[in-house]
Amino acid sequence: MGKRLIVIGGVAAGMSAASKAARQNKEMTIDVYTDESYISYSACSLPYYTQDVIDNKEVMIARSVAEFGERGVRAHPQHKALRVDPAKKAVLIRRPDSAEAWEAYDRLVIATGARPIVPPLPGIGLEGVFTVKQIPQAERLKEYIAARKPARAVIAGGGFIGAEMAEALLALGLKVTVLEMAPRIMTLMDEDMAALVAKELRAAGAEVITGAALTGMLGEDRVNAVASDSGEIAADLVILAIGVKPNTEIAQAAGIELGFKNAIRVNERMETNLPDIYAAGDCAAARHLVTGKETYIPLGTTANKQGKIAGENAAGGQAVFKGVVGTTIFKVIEKEGARTGLSLREAGLAGIDAWESTITSYTRAAGYPGRGEITVKLVVEKGSRRLLGGQIFGAAGAGKRIDVLAALLQTGASIDLLAELDLAYAPPFSPVWDPLLVAANQAVSKADKME
Amino acid sequence: MGKRLIVIGGVAAGMSAASKAARQNKEMTIDVYTDESYISYSACSLPYYTQDVIDNKEVMIARSVAEFGERGVRAHPQHKALRVDPAKKAVLIRRPDSAEAWEAYDRLVIATGARPIVPPLPGIGLEGVFTVKQIPQAERLKEYIAARKPARAVIAGGGFIGAEMAEALLALGLKVTVLEMAPRIMTLMDEDMAALVAKELRAAGAEVITGAALTGMLGEDRVNAVASDSGEIAADLVILAIGVKPNTEIAQAAGIELGFKNAIRVNERMETNLPDIYAAGDCAAARHLVTGKETYIPLGTTANKQGKIAGENAAGGQAVFKGVVGTTIFKVIEKEGARTGLSLREAGLAGIDAWESTITSYTRAAGYPGRGEITVKLVVEKGSRRLLGGQIFGAAGAGKRIDVLAALLQTGASIDLLAELDLAYAPPFSPVWDPLLVAANQAVSKADKME
Repeated sequence: MGKRLIVIGGVAAGMSAASKAARQNKEMTIDVYTDESYISYSACSLPYYTQDVIDNKEVMIARSVAEFGERGVRAHPQHKALRVDPAKKAVLIRRPDSAEAWEAYDRLVIATGARPIVPPLPGIGLEGVFTVKQIPQAERLKEYIAARKPARAVIAGGGFIGAEMAEALLALGLKVTVLEMAPRIMTLMDEDMAALVAKELRAAGAEVITGAALTGMLGEDRVNAVASDSGEIAADLVILAIGVKPNTEIAQAAGIELGFKNAIRVNERMETNLPDIYAAGDCAAARHLVTGKETYIPLGTTANKQGKIAGENAAGGQAVFKGVVGTTIFKVIEKEGARTGLSLREAGLAGIDAWESTITSYTRAAGYPGRGEITVKLVVEKGSRRLLGGQIFGAAGAGKRIDVLAALLQTGASIDLLAELDLAYAPPFSPVWDPLLVAANQAVSKADKME
Repeated sequence: MGKRLIVIGGVAAGMSAASKAARQNKEMTIDVYTDESYISYSACSLPYYTQDVIDNKEVMIARSVAEFGERGVRAHPQHKALRVDPAKKAVLIRRPDSAEAWEAYDRLVIATGARPIVPPLPGIGLEGVFTVKQIPQAERLKEYIAARKPARAVIAGGGFIGAEMAEALLALGLKVTVLEMAPRIMTLMDEDMAALVAKELRAAGAEVITGAALTGMLGEDRVNAVASDSGEIAADLVILAIGVKPNTEIAQAAGIELGFKNAIRVNERMETNLPDIYAAGDCAAARHLVTGKETYIPLGTTANKQGKIAGENAAGGQAVFKGVVGTTIFKVIEKEGARTGLSLREAGLAGIDAWESTITSYTRAAGYPGRGEITVKLVVEKGSRRLLGGQIFGAAGAGKRIDVLAALLQTGASIDLLAELDLAYAPPFSPVWDPLLVAANQAVSKADKME
């Protein structure tokens, strides 16, 4: 087994891999190279850092370089990996002083993450146009807001991050327009559920424009409007939240096989097609446990799990990562949304004959303060009655209920099992029939009628 | 199939049975007899009604007699069922005017519930001594507090209801002592978890005395102290929250077989040993899905489910109720607690070789407001690594996580599956490793070392 482990990438997957390898194998030397200045930070916290809900940058950083050092991991920020040579088992690194050197590995973990999609549109380079994926980007955004006091923001992209950034900028007092190219925002949810999210954003004062692509940024040095299929929209701040793509150029150049959406193809052990090279996190694909097919759903949770498995195996272990069901949760203004498994649309795309059942109930018992509506949609396989996915939107306490559905998806359970669950009830937490049970009961009735 | 359904009992199980039967079979006449004045109310809400968190009695009542009437259910409050004659298939009913009459049934559902245990102690009849199971009891308690302005309360019994009532009375400004006969409060949780609950109660100003039985109430007409193994405790209000026992005397007298803790023995169809007689709710036993054995865990959730199944079958259906895992949740002051399946102690009593693994983590991401500690205990079967139970205590958002464990228990899942779950993460809801995953990872490591 190899003695020198190199990890490329120092955020969730990379640092998880390095930490796990260090625990697994005390003999290994472990070097993490990242072109970023920060390591081991929570990118998902940046919308909250932007709005000062999280007011301290340091808390977003799990561990410092020194702390990793004490754990046997040498982290090298601002060291960019330029090339991987699988034949000589080495990575070409450019140091902060611009000197380049080949660093040899016995085992390599590629955890290069993903980057926001920045379309090559006119004016894309203007001041006031931001992506928010890394800490320095969020810092520059905050500085820009403080210095320029923008009044009108356009957020291009109505996905989870777009919604979170809309909340952040509304909280800072900006006028916010969410501009989405697709016919609706939140395309990872079905149309009726996405409409609830749009309603919440609009109720908070945001404008939501769908079916209209961003076509350019207007302004001299600084942006003052965007051009779109829906006309010009005044904006002295633009956030690009269109989506991300995996950073896999370095892997591809080394002859590593890519898969779905150009993410690195890995097996259950997080091995790539090349010997002794592993991949994990937002640069890697994963198996979807509902469809059984390769998918690409970049999430911090998956990055941490895949990193841990890759690190364990790179250090001589025998761990497996079975796959994902695509569970995601988000807060938007006063509401919570979540989804797991397949939406009805996704089931259709996967060629699975499916139907849906949706109910609206309440988060807490009648009369208990803070009670609010919760809508639960179940997606069910025709015939087998297998649960394929779920979507939730509602008041405080709604979102994390998705975890029960996520757990059932991983066991291949039916809606009948869901209806039988002995879920917790007390007035501060749920009506006596938890909304998940109400949803399951309705789905079971529907299924019975179909037979 | 029978045309006349009688239901004895008008709270959770009884009204669920009647409602379901009415939906299932439009031809049936359905009469519900209850000796109470209120039907279809949420007994679990009474601690919150006591402290005026729920400030309106009406909201605790799901449906009125008139509303049930529109649904084909005739509810008869203040009609006490005195006797069941299985041979002539009739129930002797005493009406509000004290007249008695036999009412014939084709099918009978017994849903007589449970009643608080009131030990025959000296002074038990004094003014100021209360149980809180039915609406009128809570109303009398509220009136007593308003009129007498008691300053010092003793709550006999440190279970879930005792803790909820302690919270209620502390909120009303009383000095509260919780007096528990067992060596610790919260005996449905293991000792370390129960200690967290006691700590929270004490931090809120309650006194918690364990290992001391209540031996009597002192006072002239009105209580002014309790006698206990721990000496006299001044008290101008006493709440008995020692536990409940099933109301099964009427069933037993009719020759219906009782089971665990004198609860009515039922099969999966909620049938008793006598033809055409069903039982459901707090008067009935249930199968424990982890041990496979008969158990008695009276809860509103189970009562509703069992009632629904009993009603469906009494009306000609073929539904089954597989059983329970004993999921319970409670709020105490600022914290939330929950449990499901077997505690380590219960596993031992069931003859299952088990071990435990406990972690403390956080409810939300670092820096996110409202983040607090959460402790998760897993109970695991030796060898098989099957999850047997879980206990949770912590800050807001902690408690309902129990549902994931409850769902897994019902599938017989291992801790390895728990560790693989794709649980939802965003900073307002969880750290990137949900506390359940942290708990599972630690348990998996422990299990690996045992092998």
